[in-house]
Amino acid sequence: MDTIMLNGRGLTFDQVKEVAYNKKPVEITEEAEDTIKKARALIFKLADEGYPVYGLNRGVGWNKDKYVFSEFFQKYNENLINAHCVAVGPDAKIEEVRAMMVIRLNTALCGSTGMAPELLHLYRDFLNNDIVPVIPRRGSIGEADIATLSHIGLAMIGQGDVFYNGERMAASKAIEMAGLKPAELGPKDGLGIVSSNAHGAGLAALAVKEVEELIEISNLAYCLGMEGLNGNIESLDEKVNEARKMKGQMECAAQCREFLSDSYLHEPHKERALQDSLAYRGAFAVNGSVLDSLNYVKENLEIQLNSTDDNPCILVEEGRLSVSTNFEPTTWVVGIEMLNIALSHMSKTACHRTIKLSDPSFTKLTRFLTPSEGDVIAYGTIQKCFTSLDTEIRMLANPSSMDYFSVAGNIEDHANNSPLVVDKLFKILDNLRYIIGMELMHAVQAIDLRKVDAMGTGTRKAYDLIRSEIPFLENDRCLSVDIKKAYDIIKSGRLLEAVK
Amino acid sequence: MDTIMLNGRGLTFDQVKEVAYNKKPVEITEEAEDTIKKARALIFKLADEGYPVYGLNRGVGWNKDKYVFSEFFQKYNENLINAHCVAVGPDAKIEEVRAMMVIRLNTALCGSTGMAPELLHLYRDFLNNDIVPVIPRRGSIGEADIATLSHIGLAMIGQGDVFYNGERMAASKAIEMAGLKPAELGPKDGLGIVSSNAHGAGLAALAVKEVEELIEISNLAYCLGMEGLNGNIESLDEKVNEARKMKGQMECAAQCREFLSDSYLHEPHKERALQDSLAYRGAFAVNGSVLDSLNYVKENLEIQLNSTDDNPCILVEEGRLSVSTNFEPTTWVVGIEMLNIALSHMSKTACHRTIKLSDPSFTKLTRFLTPSEGDVIAYGTIQKCFTSLDTEIRMLANPSSMDYFSVAGNIEDHANNSPLVVDKLFKILDNLRYIIGMELMHAVQAIDLRKVDAMGTGTRKAYDLIRSEIPFLENDRCLSVDIKKAYDIIKSGRLLEAVK
Amino acid sequence: MDTIMLNGRGLTFDQVKEVAYNKKPVEITEEAEDTIKKARALIFKLADEGYPVYGLNRGVGWNKDKYVFSEFFQKYNENLINAHCVAVGPDAKIEEVRAMMVIRLNTALCGSTGMAPELLHLYRDFLNNDIVPVIPRRGSIGEADIATLSHIGLAMIGQGDVFYNGERMAASKAIEMAGLKPAELGPKDGLGIVSSNAHGAGLAALAVKEVEELIEISNLAYCLGMEGLNGNIESLDEKVNEARKMKGQMECAAQCREFLSDSYLHEPHKERALQDSLAYRGAFAVNGSVLDSLNYVKENLEIQLNSTDDNPCILVEEGRLSVSTNFEPTTWVVGIEMLNIALSHMSKTACHRTIKLSDPSFTKLTRFLTPSEGDVIAYGTIQKCFTSLDTEIRMLANPSSMDYFSVAGNIEDHANNSPLVVDKLFKILDNLRYIIGMELMHAVQAIDLRKVDAMGTGTRKAYDLIRSEIPFLENDRCLSVDIKKAYDIIKSGRLLEAVK
Amino acid sequence: MDTIMLNGRGLTFDQVKEVAYNKKPVEITEEAEDTIKKARALIFKLADEGYPVYGLNRGVGWNKDKYVFSEFFQKYNENLINAHCVAVGPDAKIEEVRAMMVIRLNTALCGSTGMAPELLHLYRDFLNNDIVPVIPRRGSIGEADIATLSHIGLAMIGQGDVFYNGERMAASKAIEMAGLKPAELGPKDGLGIVSSNAHGAGLAALAVKEVEELIEISNLAYCLGMEGLNGNIESLDEKVNEARKMKGQMECAAQCREFLSDSYLHEPHKERALQDSLAYRGAFAVNGSVLDSLNYVKENLEIQLNSTDDNPCILVEEGRLSVSTNFEPTTWVVGIEMLNIALSHMSKTACHRTIKLSDPSFTKLTRFLTPSEGDVIAYGTIQKCFTSLDTEIRMLANPSSMDYFSVAGNIEDHANNSPLVVDKLFKILDNLRYIIGMELMHAVQAIDLRKVDAMGTGTRKAYDLIRSEIPFLENDRCLSVDIKKAYDIIKSGRLLEAVK
Repeated sequence: MDTIMLNGRGLTFDQVKEVAYNKKPVEITEEAEDTIKKARALIFKLADEGYPVYGLNRGVGWNKDKYVFSEFFQKYNENLINAHCVAVGPDAKIEEVRAMMVIRLNTALCGSTGMAPELLHLYRDFLNNDIVPVIPRRGSIGEADIATLSHIGLAMIGQGDVFYNGERMAASKAIEMAGLKPAELGPKDGLGIVSSNAHGAGLAALAVKEVEELIEISNLAYCLGMEGLNGNIESLDEKVNEARKMKGQMECAAQCREFLSDSYLHEPHKERALQDSLAYRGAFAVNGSVLDSLNYVKENLEIQLNSTDDNPCILVEEGRLSVSTNFEPTTWVVGIEMLNIALSHMSKTACHRTIKLSDPSFTKLTRFLTPSEGDVIAYGTIQKCFTSLDTEIRMLANPSSMDYFSVAGNIEDHANNSPLVVDKLFKILDNLRYIIGMELMHAVQAIDLRKVDAMGTGTRKAYDLIRSEIPFLENDRCLSVDIKKAYDIIKSGRLLEAVK
Repeated sequence: MDTIMLNGRGLTFDQVKEVAYNKKPVEITEEAEDTIKKARALIFKLADEGYPVYGLNRGVGWNKDKYVFSEFFQKYNENLINAHCVAVGPDAKIEEVRAMMVIRLNTALCGSTGMAPELLHLYRDFLNNDIVPVIPRRGSIGEADIATLSHIGLAMIGQGDVFYNGERMAASKAIEMAGLKPAELGPKDGLGIVSSNAHGAGLAALAVKEVEELIEISNLAYCLGMEGLNGNIESLDEKVNEARKMKGQMECAAQCREFLSDSYLHEPHKERALQDSLAYRGAFAVNGSVLDSLNYVKENLEIQLNSTDDNPCILVEEGRLSVSTNFEPTTWVVGIEMLNIALSHMSKTACHRTIKLSDPSFTKLTRFLTPSEGDVIAYGTIQKCFTSLDTEIRMLANPSSMDYFSVAGNIEDHANNSPLVVDKLFKILDNLRYIIGMELMHAVQAIDLRKVDAMGTGTRKAYDLIRSEIPFLENDRCLSVDIKKAYDIIKSGRLLEAVK
Repeated sequence: MDTIMLNGRGLTFDQVKEVAYNKKPVEITEEAEDTIKKARALIFKLADEGYPVYGLNRGVGWNKDKYVFSEFFQKYNENLINAHCVAVGPDAKIEEVRAMMVIRLNTALCGSTGMAPELLHLYRDFLNNDIVPVIPRRGSIGEADIATLSHIGLAMIGQGDVFYNGERMAASKAIEMAGLKPAELGPKDGLGIVSSNAHGAGLAALAVKEVEELIEISNLAYCLGMEGLNGNIESLDEKVNEARKMKGQMECAAQCREFLSDSYLHEPHKERALQDSLAYRGAFAVNGSVLDSLNYVKENLEIQLNSTDDNPCILVEEGRLSVSTNFEPTTWVVGIEMLNIALSHMSKTACHRTIKLSDPSFTKLTRFLTPSEGDVIAYGTIQKCFTSLDTEIRMLANPSSMDYFSVAGNIEDHANNSPLVVDKLFKILDNLRYIIGMELMHAVQAIDLRKVDAMGTGTRKAYDLIRSEIPFLENDRCLSVDIKKAYDIIKSGRLLEAVK
Repeated sequence: MDTIMLNGRGLTFDQVKEVAYNKKPVEITEEAEDTIKKARALIFKLADEGYPVYGLNRGVGWNKDKYVFSEFFQKYNENLINAHCVAVGPDAKIEEVRAMMVIRLNTALCGSTGMAPELLHLYRDFLNNDIVPVIPRRGSIGEADIATLSHIGLAMIGQGDVFYNGERMAASKAIEMAGLKPAELGPKDGLGIVSSNAHGAGLAALAVKEVEELIEISNLAYCLGMEGLNGNIESLDEKVNEARKMKGQMECAAQCREFLSDSYLHEPHKERALQDSLAYRGAFAVNGSVLDSLNYVKENLEIQLNSTDDNPCILVEEGRLSVSTNFEPTTWVVGIEMLNIALSHMSKTACHRTIKLSDPSFTKLTRFLTPSEGDVIAYGTIQKCFTSLDTEIRMLANPSSMDYFSVAGNIEDHANNSPLVVDKLFKILDNLRYIIGMELMHAVQAIDLRKVDAMGTGTRKAYDLIRSEIPFLENDRCLSVDIKKAYDIIKSGRLLEAVK
């Protein structure tokens, strides 16, 4: 397995995913080692000079006027870690904590943090030894994630719990088993650990990949639905979409054309409508809007992954440090709120498409896609299921980033709630997997009832996979079971694999 | 253990709770047995006469124009049950399903349902034998809860899974072990099982009790905070609140006066403020508004528990049945949305009170309630935790009842999403337990720092309990642990027990 | 014209409306005169004794620790009025300000305010002489409405502008023209003027009447639609609704039965559906939920209109005053938020009914109710208009009461935003007038196309009125004009008058 | 005055503004004239060949299956215009309608519309002769704006009303007075007029400019506040912000550095805080997030202004037309919803900054910035005003784009509500002008009380302007008047002019 080299620049979403899920090892480049040493030296120099530094020889937050004396650095920083452990469950997932850790490590390598190199090595060693601190996922207001990232520090000083190779145990035990040593905290180390957007950013980096996949899955479900509907694919035309110039729309249209290559939909058909309903005709455009929103998030989140979010900000080359507001992530947090809204559009259109598939006036097939009118009820009540999940998405698409209190003695009077905002995104995505799963169930049933022969090269593969797990609905059966299966086909990644 | 006698009238929230949590047995009164027999007879009479009846000899939903012939009643009703099983996880809790079942049983005893008496006996027997169908909790749009209650029918015909004495197994196995027989479904039995608001109403009935308790807990936490703050209790004055006449406010003020009887706050104190901040001065009034909202819900939900929500509606005395819209629960569903909003006010004021407790300019105590300024950081960052939970509550307080699709061939073009609305209430309540838990942590720390001697009779008991589990914060420690303890003291019911 | 006698009790919504719109004169009862004199005397006694009283010999808000000496009472109170004039446009309407004034006057008569009797007489005189202070309507957070009610005080001391018999002029001029004298402010007078919920309550009291009317109008439009649809009225059956027991539903069903008495819908019809879509079948039940919500508001708002909302609260009989939180109106404010949500349901169902009326598969009439398919397009695009107005209602139904800052030196850390909440209600109501106006347009067109002869006694009158102003749609014409006419028929009150 | 040459490409926001507000004349390039002639010829060729084309020889929406015969083209298109006039007030402003018209004209020049060249010339002539159709602003669901843009067509055929040189009159009269002739509509002309996003896009294009200006104004107010606060400007450091790399943040920091050049804040000051509250320290970063959001909108809206949004889409070079979904604007509509959310952050932080300015513990100045404690109350209650406006912004920041019905016979089952979304943006911007106006009032009062001498080069100019219109608050006066003045200074553009 390759090692991912970290230097504070160029960390990609794919790499974060590799480290988070696949435990790919990380290493710090020599250049970066040099940078963090210089930064650390600068910290000590300034501390020696008595220069007042937030979080170093002064308290943090409202306590910024309190002195911290150098003989108490370790005690103070341990206190800081403990007092900042103020989070509630449920716990973050192992892959999520790993994403947080690699991001925090990478941004610290920019050289503006000033944490002890030994402490940064411990991030690397935790990751490479699969020691994953237990972090209750709620408590941060995202400015920065000091209430939750503190639990990483807690584990590093040998307190609290971790997962070691997946097994939960005391941090101290895991550190010993792995042959490591707990951290001793020096000046600014506590602040360096907690003062970062790595919690929100870690979640967001993983979510970005999930959204990318879901756009593709939704495009695929739409294409299968088109074959079930006998839809008109004219609006997918390359020239037509080029005339509009919207990026996401063009990209999604191209993907759909690929899924549908060789489909019978390319042939004229006398029963085909001149124009389908908008949820069909514009499916790829709406999904394109999701993609456009995602690209805004990615562009700005990538900056987050590869730049300092520290306060104070150390400027090694200039030999000074400065108060900063570099932990302000609002740009990409509101981007995720836009993405949540865009996904609500994806959800609505998926629901409308699925409803259409069970309506004979659109499909010329049977009502509710029953194989036998009168005897078999088929896909009637199921509409309540996917629309109720859409209603939940609608609710989750309401913004939360601006709902905050003025805290810490009114010193912290702005926040963005990034972890909550991303958690809503995760819930939206999960509901969408169910919704699109039901869209797929309808699509393949319609394809069967229509006795479609010539399917697209992509849709054919998807059809085969789905039908291998969910048979044709010949008689009424407990559909909750089928819905779960359809969800699993998507969630497991099998669907996208099938069409690659 | 007493038996609860059911007859379609007078079922109380306490009884629902007894059946749900404590498995108190239920029995059907003789009068009610008579009623359901008559209703059943009427159904058969009308079926024989060929009178077209929705869900009896005609399909349901969009299929309302389809004939159902009597020789296919069982088959049709089994199909109906299966086709209506369209729900997704997580599963409803055992107590929730039990609440649904007792409510559906009770409302069916009004005599407007027409289900087979044997089938209603099976509801009773399932309850009394602790056979609890597994119901995925999401999927219903609440008009009625046909997508989820269907799983009760599924279990009754011996399909799907149940919990039998808490153990998950096949329904068929549990039925056999309990010495029962699976149901055979006759005309309208399928519809009778699914077409009810019992899912939303069952959840709501349990939530009502939780809200009641939480109001009391919040009043208690406020009183403890007052003792920590050295607050001015003048606004609790009985005459003053009588002059205002708001019911909930008067009731909460009375409760607080009781908690605080014999407190030092009754004595004058030279450092006491003329007026405290509104979140203190008006705490019981805001909680009173929660109580007023709750009472609206209770009044209307009680009707729901003790009247028919069937369509068609059988009128035994008149020997006829009628199309109805009696499954329309919007009145109490919007009531719960009001309650969610009112609880958001409770949450905001709890947060503001807690913030005040760590602010020396209000308390004349130390900053962040530290026992040792400079050394111990204490309750600083914890503000982020409870305010972030409040932000989530703010989001959950947005309404969802009106977000629905037109489904079932555009026949079902209204909905209310009662299960989702109540699920949001549950989440709000759970977050509030954490928030108030942290308020309690602050309050007792302030009481300790202030060296309060004469506490109220109620607050003293609460203080003792809390301090027996969460010691004085002498040094910084992992507060996530303390927060969890405070939550558990509330969640377990121990706190309210202590002050009874 | 009768005079309305005020004594702090028993003020009704009808009376508020009479005073607000019809300028009915008001008078203070002798008993109330006695009460306010006693209260005033008590104020002076306490001031003389040097007892510290908020807003009397101490400042307000954060300035509650500042002394106010008796020789500066007038100056201080004038400063207070001026400093509290912090509102922005648009201005409140004349009837709204009159409603505020009569409510503030009435609640001051409870005897807990302690304002100078002469000042209270000026409220009466302003009302009876039609002097109406100009109040910019935005600025209050509702706890109490000190930022806007201050403009009443401003006018009373002869500053700012008023409407005098409808003409805008300087307050000083109007006072002189009316033969009155500007107020001289004594202790607590400034606070008495500003510290009241009368702004929010005045708006709400007027809105309550509008909601009552709109429920009736919606019931009427639904009944007309039923005649256009050839709908099934079985669900309106009295016995069926009695079996359900929901109050609002029963009342709305009764009203609809009256509108439809003698309608052809009472006769069987072979083309009539067994069940209509829910938006038809349950229209009166949804409107009943609006009524249930309204009744909660009315019950609690009536308390507001007839009890003290003062702080401090004077207890004349006990010869003391007390800090209070009696200005806390959250109970009815969240009630209005519930009402806004319920009205969103009314709006959705009205839209769905109207869409159905243009759909041949439900009506068996022409598409879009065209008189001539192919030539005349008729009611197609109009769906976008009423649904877009519904979308705005959906937005306005989101709650706002809990979105506030901690202000006044963190002393005022709760609010409820009652004026904004009621303003949203007004906007919802106005949009609904358009939406229901379009429903009416569809209904009468369907009735014409169906050549309905026997209409209900109520619906017939409504039909005649509408058709006298909006002729049958024979050819396409600018529908924006027709929509405006339909709105005016409702807004002007002519529609309800016609059916009385 | 220069003429703006239109050719379907390169239309800028500045040009739209010039045409909308300053009535700059427009002309169509020769190349574009050629393009639209070719497109028109293609339309006729296809119509002659009997090829079925939506909106040409077939109906639109649900009527897409209806034939339209060539002899009825004019009649059909006039009917279409009339039947699509389904909008309600208030009316769009003159500049807004002009923006819509120039955008619709420009996009039609791309050659994918096929409207008659004469008709497009009439757009030009209306603009250049200042004939502005009256358009009720509500009714469109934005997919496309067919319910409102129809009123442009109405005026062009000489029906309905227009503003001619600002005076309202019958369209027919204005056309005659201007020496023009009403349009005669041929095939697809009706559809070409109505089927465009020009309503939403026109509003958005004007709003974009307003947001740009407001960001600058907010930066300026923040800088003035810093001088009032004696704030720490270290976080504005160029190197520090470069280390973070967020684009908007860097740009706003640079702007602030310019405003503050030569300010006393560059000199050390013993009373200055090590770090200010986040709303100060991060003001430019939050404003930078608004800018980042705005840039997303601009990038995508610019595509909208310069590409086809027609359906069907004519491909001149390929000699064919195609069904399209090119009227799908969701990408930039959700961008505006993000922008609304970002502006809510701007608003919150402005409020928090303003609250801080009246708090002695932050400013070391007097409470509420009074010139005389005890006598003058000053800026206390005003906090309620700006926070209440923020609450309204919070509400308006909730998304609406996804709240739509399935209309037109379920053919139109997606929408985006672009006009409503932009109208919310306008309201947010207007509230922000008040809020920032009050921030400015506080800032200059603090500057006066602090007796600041050396102001920044930009802030000095702003200070002088404000103080020339709003004198120092020496005594309490009606602040509603001052608030209005501060708003006008911003709204009129005078403030930005002053600092240029």
